Amino acid sequence: MMENRIYNFNAGPAALPLEVLEKIKDSFLNFGDSGMSITEISHRSTLFDDVINDAVARTRRLLKLDDKFQVLFIQGGASLQFSMIPLNLLGEGDTADYVNTGTWSTKAIKEAEIMGKTINVVASSEDKNFSYIPKNISFNSNAVYAHITSNNTIKGTQWASFPETGGVPLIADMSSDIMSRPLDVDKFGLIYAGAQKNIGPAGVCMVIIRDDMLKRVPDTLPSMLKYTTYASKNSMFNTPPCFSIYMIQLVMKWLEESIGGLEEMAKMNQTKARILYEAIDASGFYQGTAETDSRSLMNVTFRLPDEALEKQFVEQALKNSMGGLKGHRSVGGCRASIYNATPMAAVEALIDFMKNFEQKNG
Amino acid sequence: MMENRIYNFNAGPAALPLEVLEKIKDSFLNFGDSGMSITEISHRSTLFDDVINDAVARTRRLLKLDDKFQVLFIQGGASLQFSMIPLNLLGEGDTADYVNTGTWSTKAIKEAEIMGKTINVVASSEDKNFSYIPKNISFNSNAVYAHITSNNTIKGTQWASFPETGGVPLIADMSSDIMSRPLDVDKFGLIYAGAQKNIGPAGVCMVIIRDDMLKRVPDTLPSMLKYTTYASKNSMFNTPPCFSIYMIQLVMKWLEESIGGLEEMAKMNQTKARILYEAIDASGFYQGTAETDSRSLMNVTFRLPDEALEKQFVEQALKNSMGGLKGHRSVGGCRASIYNATPMAAVEALIDFMKNFEQKNG
Repeated sequence: MMENRIYNFNAGPAALPLEVLEKIKDSFLNFGDSGMSITEISHRSTLFDDVINDAVARTRRLLKLDDKFQVLFIQGGASLQFSMIPLNLLGEGDTADYVNTGTWSTKAIKEAEIMGKTINVVASSEDKNFSYIPKNISFNSNAVYAHITSNNTIKGTQWASFPETGGVPLIADMSSDIMSRPLDVDKFGLIYAGAQKNIGPAGVCMVIIRDDMLKRVPDTLPSMLKYTTYASKNSMFNTPPCFSIYMIQLVMKWLEESIGGLEEMAKMNQTKARILYEAIDASGFYQGTAETDSRSLMNVTFRLPDEALEKQFVEQALKNSMGGLKGHRSVGGCRASIYNATPMAAVEALIDFMKNFEQKNG
Repeated sequence: MMENRIYNFNAGPAALPLEVLEKIKDSFLNFGDSGMSITEISHRSTLFDDVINDAVARTRRLLKLDDKFQVLFIQGGASLQFSMIPLNLLGEGDTADYVNTGTWSTKAIKEAEIMGKTINVVASSEDKNFSYIPKNISFNSNAVYAHITSNNTIKGTQWASFPETGGVPLIADMSSDIMSRPLDVDKFGLIYAGAQKNIGPAGVCMVIIRDDMLKRVPDTLPSMLKYTTYASKNSMFNTPPCFSIYMIQLVMKWLEESIGGLEEMAKMNQTKARILYEAIDASGFYQGTAETDSRSLMNVTFRLPDEALEKQFVEQALKNSMGGLKGHRSVGGCRASIYNATPMAAVEALIDFMKNFEQKNG
């Protein structure tokens, strides 16, 4: 760890690869020998075309996307997608299935309902405070899509494998685990991810959409709310969030060239999560909150014996250069988010600190 | 000019103050002693609260906004505002007036019409290729608002003063001239500005909205498309575009502390535009395209005797470290965008180059 940097366990915006940050810092006054900052170049320049095209090409290679899929960059975060998906895909008389696995699924369901769309919540883990991923779900064969949240940042759960939908296209909010593991995209009609957890800074949402979904988009929507607008203009109908897309490009480059692809990334993520959960399970002091087979490899949620100790834990960790360990304000407790850019050394340092803290306070 | 930087006459994204860029570069790995990059800190932290609150406070001071106005940060650019304005403000049976002064006004009108809203185009300068700002416009007294584009980036025209609407609230797209001069906000119900010309990088739109406008927002809109969502949550209903807002904060600080406010900024902008237009008018070689009393102080559009010379002009300027002088692809010709951050030295260098180019080719 660099002297003045901390280990960042924030849930999002979150840690980004140091080599990406250094590259941006070094070129911030003069991007690609243009004599301008990346924040000052025209989005209608060859310089920026190269950025966005490389970001898309690397995304395609990393996720093994074939020509059926398009990669789009849209502003407004996953929260705008909660509305854009039903607006674009559900016409008169259409229905969709939703699985409710926590705060973000609940919001996605709520936004669809605000617009008066017909949706069915076919499974939910609300009965146990969203501490597990539902199994053996019956999807409606006439649903236009089946919506899931692949990783639940707040509750610390994750789909280890994706559900069998009987041919209904899956739509997944992958904001907090995209690019953390290889993906079998064939099941999916649409994938979306706010960048600020695993692939970049806040301010852009990656949307991967299949051709047949694009055919459902009605002409009557405002241009900025239609997926077809972004698909036909390489995400540049209007000025795109250039800096955020540039940062995604560099993160994709890091994933391909420094990490070696998603298989390698997944191995590292598995190891980081395994040693942290093992440390929790080996102690009588820390208690994981998610059911074992539903545990997230990205967000490790745990409790201490009481809230006063949790507060101390978070404060003392920060004094030891480990930040972002407080649980989400809606659930309390502690949470270590260990996304792609969190190095193994950070997890090892956290485990050491946890053992130490337990010895003193257990 | 720093050795490896150029004079940037881009229309947007555009030049930003060098001291802002340097501040970001210097702190990019460790923002505010947090040990994290500005792109890695939580939007729910005191650190970020300070950023967004300072950006809002400085905006309020610079524009002399009273409590009736709220300052919001919304993603999607001015193009999303073209839809959000009618969606939020025009209910059943309501109408609005629009003045068409060029490409962006035309788009604003088109987006309102896509949604089947009733609007009236009460004036247009399309008859003369949008080369002037219409005068003596009759607005409809029952209009909910009257929409104008305060500066027309592509056609090089600008409202020198705002029209008398007989009490109808003005709504202005100020993307390309916000903060370039003091503003009498009392006439306005809503002002919006994509940041990437005068106040920051692409990826955020500043919206200044008056309380009575907020009262018109219907409950039935998706959360991310309602102004009330942003107003009630200090623009943080979901993760905001943190980096872009941070950059706006620094530009507002520069305007207040280094420039000395909007009166000072306006004086500098007037001088820059005056000497450039004088150079154009004194030559028989360069020809301004906008009518004299409608000329923009931000985007100076001009033609050379033929297109081959225009191409040479742009190319040779770039070789002399002056970039972005090509006119918009829809109109051709040349354009020097001289926003707030373009220094006087850049305009002087451009005038020298123009004289030189004329001597050789005139």
